[in-house]
Amino acid sequence: MNAPLLSLSRRLRRTPFSEGVEAAGVKAYTVYNHMLLPTVFRSVTEDYRHLKQAVQVWDVACERQVELRGPDAGRLMQMLTPRDLGGVVPGRCLYVPIVDATGGMLNDPVAVKLDEDRWWISIADSDLLYWVNGVAQGWRLDVLIDEPDVSPLAVQGPKAEELMARVFGDAVRDIRFFRFRALEFQGRKLRVARSGYSKQGGFEIYVEGADIGMPLWHALMEAGRDLDVRAGCPNLIERIEGGLLSYGNDMTDDNTPHECGLGRFCDTRSAIGCIGRDALLRVAREGPVKQIRPVEIHGDPVPPCDRLWPVMDGERQVGHVSSTAWSPDFETNVSIGMIRMTHWDAQTDVDVITPDGVRPATVWETFWI
Amino acid sequence: MNAPLLSLSRRLRRTPFSEGVEAAGVKAYTVYNHMLLPTVFRSVTEDYRHLKQAVQVWDVACERQVELRGPDAGRLMQMLTPRDLGGVVPGRCLYVPIVDATGGMLNDPVAVKLDEDRWWISIADSDLLYWVNGVAQGWRLDVLIDEPDVSPLAVQGPKAEELMARVFGDAVRDIRFFRFRALEFQGRKLRVARSGYSKQGGFEIYVEGADIGMPLWHALMEAGRDLDVRAGCPNLIERIEGGLLSYGNDMTDDNTPHECGLGRFCDTRSAIGCIGRDALLRVAREGPVKQIRPVEIHGDPVPPCDRLWPVMDGERQVGHVSSTAWSPDFETNVSIGMIRMTHWDAQTDVDVITPDGVRPATVWETFWI
Repeated sequence: MNAPLLSLSRRLRRTPFSEGVEAAGVKAYTVYNHMLLPTVFRSVTEDYRHLKQAVQVWDVACERQVELRGPDAGRLMQMLTPRDLGGVVPGRCLYVPIVDATGGMLNDPVAVKLDEDRWWISIADSDLLYWVNGVAQGWRLDVLIDEPDVSPLAVQGPKAEELMARVFGDAVRDIRFFRFRALEFQGRKLRVARSGYSKQGGFEIYVEGADIGMPLWHALMEAGRDLDVRAGCPNLIERIEGGLLSYGNDMTDDNTPHECGLGRFCDTRSAIGCIGRDALLRVAREGPVKQIRPVEIHGDPVPPCDRLWPVMDGERQVGHVSSTAWSPDFETNVSIGMIRMTHWDAQTDVDVITPDGVRPATVWETFWI
Repeated sequence: MNAPLLSLSRRLRRTPFSEGVEAAGVKAYTVYNHMLLPTVFRSVTEDYRHLKQAVQVWDVACERQVELRGPDAGRLMQMLTPRDLGGVVPGRCLYVPIVDATGGMLNDPVAVKLDEDRWWISIADSDLLYWVNGVAQGWRLDVLIDEPDVSPLAVQGPKAEELMARVFGDAVRDIRFFRFRALEFQGRKLRVARSGYSKQGGFEIYVEGADIGMPLWHALMEAGRDLDVRAGCPNLIERIEGGLLSYGNDMTDDNTPHECGLGRFCDTRSAIGCIGRDALLRVAREGPVKQIRPVEIHGDPVPPCDRLWPVMDGERQVGHVSSTAWSPDFETNVSIGMIRMTHWDAQTDVDVITPDGVRPATVWETFWI
């Protein structure tokens, strides 16, 4: 795997599930929101196959929550995102691009509407709390902002619903995609959403209170024994096949939501109050000049992608690749790239400069799903 | 060393010096400001001995800069910190606690005053850019905020001045502590400060332009061959001995500057405009109820400290330890703790709950310097 060692310290925070993750033999981590996020248990490929046919429990506590509470919570939430939040009812989860005044993406979290005056923002890897706090401070909004003791635990895979029903009851079966319900576990009400960072289906449990973390972990492992439940984690191959973007990998604050293919989440006409609205109005009208695209890199498996790889047409750079993996199911290198308009049409042939040399590649329009 | 593997990806950014770091045989990293920060070359102990007797070149590009530029840059800078910045002249570096409206520490950077209307904030591990941007947005300040292409490279150790003089000329010898000068390297002006995250003396070069990174690295290595120059990194043992705090390890946004022993950097009377001033006025008057202290853990070397270890007086918790290492020079476990007022006097005996069991320990007032 050719990975270096990671020096542990308190700054790289453990999670309420770390004990379970270690006992399950985690092999590697990444760091996400100053917290440990497992990346490999058996091998990326073995974990991938298992995820697609069974069920896994993922420690995604690193999806920290930013809580907004108080009279101005709704107003502030709309200031953060170009997605129109009017008419959203409590019980819903929404994927919301968060942008600054220039329309640059600061995060791409899931917002959870708990109540009319209370939201959780389940964040990707950046200190969104700092932006939200600064904005609220500057605008003197009447809102409490906090990182509560809430750690998401994901249950993903085709057998996720069966496992969840055994632990939380059949009510989980009625939860629709991107909705949540409060369900009981050992006398505690935990919010359970049908969501997660895979295309295999599943749930995310917003575990409120670190003390209930390991009891829940054990209960899921116990109940799923005959379903071949295992500890797992977001899988590089599966997420690229499915076109699930990763903030910091596939996009940064240099990018607008439109460049990331998230234009459908930008209601620039109606999202009144959004800080980046003016900047995005023009982008929305004229469209971006580069955009996220699936890129297939032909030939043998390429090495891990730990930096941008240039995408070329002859001598001219027309984009870059930011994530890549060998897909056993599709028998090719599935990749995510940011490609200029001149080359983003489906089936455009390009070259990618990898550490192993120049490789022929093809730009596609839809991911491997 | 018992460290797990780190999975690399673009999100964990490489630096302009990564090539040199890898060629020097880096053994482990941590992640700091979404960037790779080396932690071990030969071993933490070997690196420590070498740092104390020779000279090392450190890739601390992860100390990202937040640049403030424009008419309101000075006003904004003062809003961020309780340290009085009145009368500070360009050419100075200042250690500045950054606090939110509650007086909680958001970062503990070094602020570099480039010009009357231009500052760099050389940050510790949190996305301070987000807080600064949010505040400026909310207050509608006339200021540009950006992360420029600037990557600090530190030269540390008793022979640092000699090495730096060979590369930048004798002018470096005249740079006073926490001052900087713009000096030429290969036709480029680079800002060079006498500063750094060790007690061995040395410099930090603010390398502007990633392209000049490796040429400078090679020039330093070449010029220092007979000085036994090596690639190094902030050293856990040396920084604890010297009482250098680490944001995220020894303090978080839960702590006020006063708890961190940084009360001398809080001019709560005169730092007018500071966002956290009101909250800190009371703390300044009454003093904190807990504070950072050196803690000596007796007995054999303790394992790495990757979470808070409770500090006890009998059954009562009176603090915690956040960083610890075996010091070969002092032949004891040097540690940093946050200790309640009742037990923070020098030579107070306490117990520390380590993963290896309860250990007797002593609270001190001054670090091992």
